Amino acid sequence: MRAEIVSIGTEILLGEIVDTNAAFIASQLPEFGIDLLHVSQVGDNPARLREVFARARERSELTIASGGLGPTEDDVTREAVSAVLGEEVYIDEEQRALLEQRFGHRGAALVERNMKQAWLIPSAQALPNPRGTAPGWWVERGGHVIVLMPGPPQEMTFMWEQQVAPRLEERASAILVSHTIKTASLGESQVDQMLADLLDTTNPSIGIYARRDGIHVRLSAKAPTREEAWRLIHPLAEQVRAILGPTVWGEDDDTLQAGVGRLLRDRGMTLAVMESATGGAIASAITDVAGSSDYFRGSLVTYATEAKIAHGVPAEVPLLHGVISRETAEAMAAAAREQLGADLGLGLTGIAGGDEIEGQPPGTMHIALTDGERTEYQTYAYYQGRDAAKRRATTVALDLVRRWLLGA
Amino acid sequence: MRAEIVSIGTEILLGEIVDTNAAFIASQLPEFGIDLLHVSQVGDNPARLREVFARARERSELTIASGGLGPTEDDVTREAVSAVLGEEVYIDEEQRALLEQRFGHRGAALVERNMKQAWLIPSAQALPNPRGTAPGWWVERGGHVIVLMPGPPQEMTFMWEQQVAPRLEERASAILVSHTIKTASLGESQVDQMLADLLDTTNPSIGIYARRDGIHVRLSAKAPTREEAWRLIHPLAEQVRAILGPTVWGEDDDTLQAGVGRLLRDRGMTLAVMESATGGAIASAITDVAGSSDYFRGSLVTYATEAKIAHGVPAEVPLLHGVISRETAEAMAAAAREQLGADLGLGLTGIAGGDEIEGQPPGTMHIALTDGERTEYQTYAYYQGRDAAKRRATTVALDLVRRWLLGA
Repeated sequence: MRAEIVSIGTEILLGEIVDTNAAFIASQLPEFGIDLLHVSQVGDNPARLREVFARARERSELTIASGGLGPTEDDVTREAVSAVLGEEVYIDEEQRALLEQRFGHRGAALVERNMKQAWLIPSAQALPNPRGTAPGWWVERGGHVIVLMPGPPQEMTFMWEQQVAPRLEERASAILVSHTIKTASLGESQVDQMLADLLDTTNPSIGIYARRDGIHVRLSAKAPTREEAWRLIHPLAEQVRAILGPTVWGEDDDTLQAGVGRLLRDRGMTLAVMESATGGAIASAITDVAGSSDYFRGSLVTYATEAKIAHGVPAEVPLLHGVISRETAEAMAAAAREQLGADLGLGLTGIAGGDEIEGQPPGTMHIALTDGERTEYQTYAYYQGRDAAKRRATTVALDLVRRWLLGA
Repeated sequence: MRAEIVSIGTEILLGEIVDTNAAFIASQLPEFGIDLLHVSQVGDNPARLREVFARARERSELTIASGGLGPTEDDVTREAVSAVLGEEVYIDEEQRALLEQRFGHRGAALVERNMKQAWLIPSAQALPNPRGTAPGWWVERGGHVIVLMPGPPQEMTFMWEQQVAPRLEERASAILVSHTIKTASLGESQVDQMLADLLDTTNPSIGIYARRDGIHVRLSAKAPTREEAWRLIHPLAEQVRAILGPTVWGEDDDTLQAGVGRLLRDRGMTLAVMESATGGAIASAITDVAGSSDYFRGSLVTYATEAKIAHGVPAEVPLLHGVISRETAEAMAAAAREQLGADLGLGLTGIAGGDEIEGQPPGTMHIALTDGERTEYQTYAYYQGRDAAKRRATTVALDLVRRWLLGA
């Protein structure tokens, strides 16, 4: 089945929002053996929308659109699809009832123009949107399917998983399975060279991608069934893991914070953090994982030096060795562990900004981890801007915890 | 001048990475009076790349591409452009020297295949890339310009600002100026109705967009000069501000955390936080602002109840009123202020997960702010998933601080 994705919203063409929806949808299609031919972004413009939907009906069997289902005058996606199919819109009583109920529930005033969110056309089924007010449309006519979903990513992805994916699964022919192996502390070209002998294979195929959390190696295989695809991937995955060895920290949807969380849970251990340069980013990453309260005690974001001292860092340590130092990082790790009563203490001090501090370059990070007896330490200096510095430091710190737990 | 954007990388079509580059570039073009006609994503496929670049040369004057300049076998963007122009690549000695120097500086091994990052063609100028190893290309021939930039966003945006934008400014004819007014605590359709009488204007025009940090109202005007465009926008902006009143918290590139930072700096006040449900997200947002150490003392991410008590929350408060309560939030605010020696203390407790706790629904947040005498409190319950819950709570908390500082 050939598909195309249409992301709707003038704000996309103006670059005011990033089109994450196309990326999400594109990532889901291969699994169902659906070939993605075109991705396009179009503004909230009736004529151009009609043109896009009309062309899509000619050259593919599936059009998946998101955006333009809101209550404002700009939102004209329903109108465009109705026009292309030459069908009249009507207010569906069930949708009207749900809409009124939802607005009541959210305590907001139901304004008259929201009523277009209760519209349907004869060829359309409504797709429930429990996370928002705009239901989607599943439109099936003359062998072509048009799916309309709301633009806000939390609403769209939920509707995809609950409503759209199951309908596509029924229609799936071939299945493509992808398996990602995630590594830390290697460069893209290093991985490329280590795996050079394997790169010529086509089914399964290998791709190498640089990511925020390290280098990812993706293996993909196409087969009539999920099982056969896995049988193709398995031996190659074994080879890749053997070559990359201990730099592999996870696979597929694993995140470093989830992996670290699993290891802590398995070992019945708790973690506490004292962080300055990352300014809470480490804690925020750890607490992105549901259930993290089982093993995460908390983080002391001691941005000011006095705050470090007030929370257990001996005053003489930053004084003698500098705030940006191995000694301060180790004292922060010990203090975090004691202050928050955890088995493991992680300490991070460094420079997230673009200026040199204490004679050390931007991006310098000192990271220490201790269980009260053994203390691990790591440092590096690499700068690509403030946000990147915080992200990278978070990744390196979490990987330090991961390796410690594997060693322990 | 007509332009198109090409984002290159099979991983984009597979949805493995989000194409933020197209959005960034698109957002920059209107300013130079450049009309963006097409945005397309294409895989690392020599034939399809040649086709895209050839078509672009026919239908527009400017092609801006990013991606496919890396060292691996997949990266074939330079090859495609060279083929379309029928020009031979050669290793530029200056680029080779820079490359060797950079790899030396980064202490990584310079592998032979990186050498293609020193390639040029006769019509191409190299665009320096201080944040990475791959220089860009500025290719000018027969009235058409092709710009090649690296895919990693930090490298691309830096190259854009330093190298590409200045070259485009020289060529600019008409200037489009956009001015965004940012509001909190209003819904999209409420704003739409409040501004209904103004929405018909075309130059300047008004757009209303729902964002992570509230509803944004964007005013845009086109004119021969920047000054004339501003003269068109100014009176309309005044009207919009008058209508939206105190819900307006900022404009253009303002972020809530930067706005709060400015207010704290102006008043010579410091802020400390104790947060649990946001798990460090508030601190991380505040410390995204350069220089935040001047006014931000730190945050106590007291994820465990014992950690709250260990850091100044009286044990009886969560015991009597529950951990997820107004009283606990207020005690956290007071404790943060005292523990970290700040003028203002912000406390947040709530439910970021999808389950009910203490009889309160997912997404419930209790937020308190105190200066030791006056204490402000805010609560709400709205759930769209864990990440959204943390983001929304961070926005509401920062807006509470902003309004407090404006009132103070």
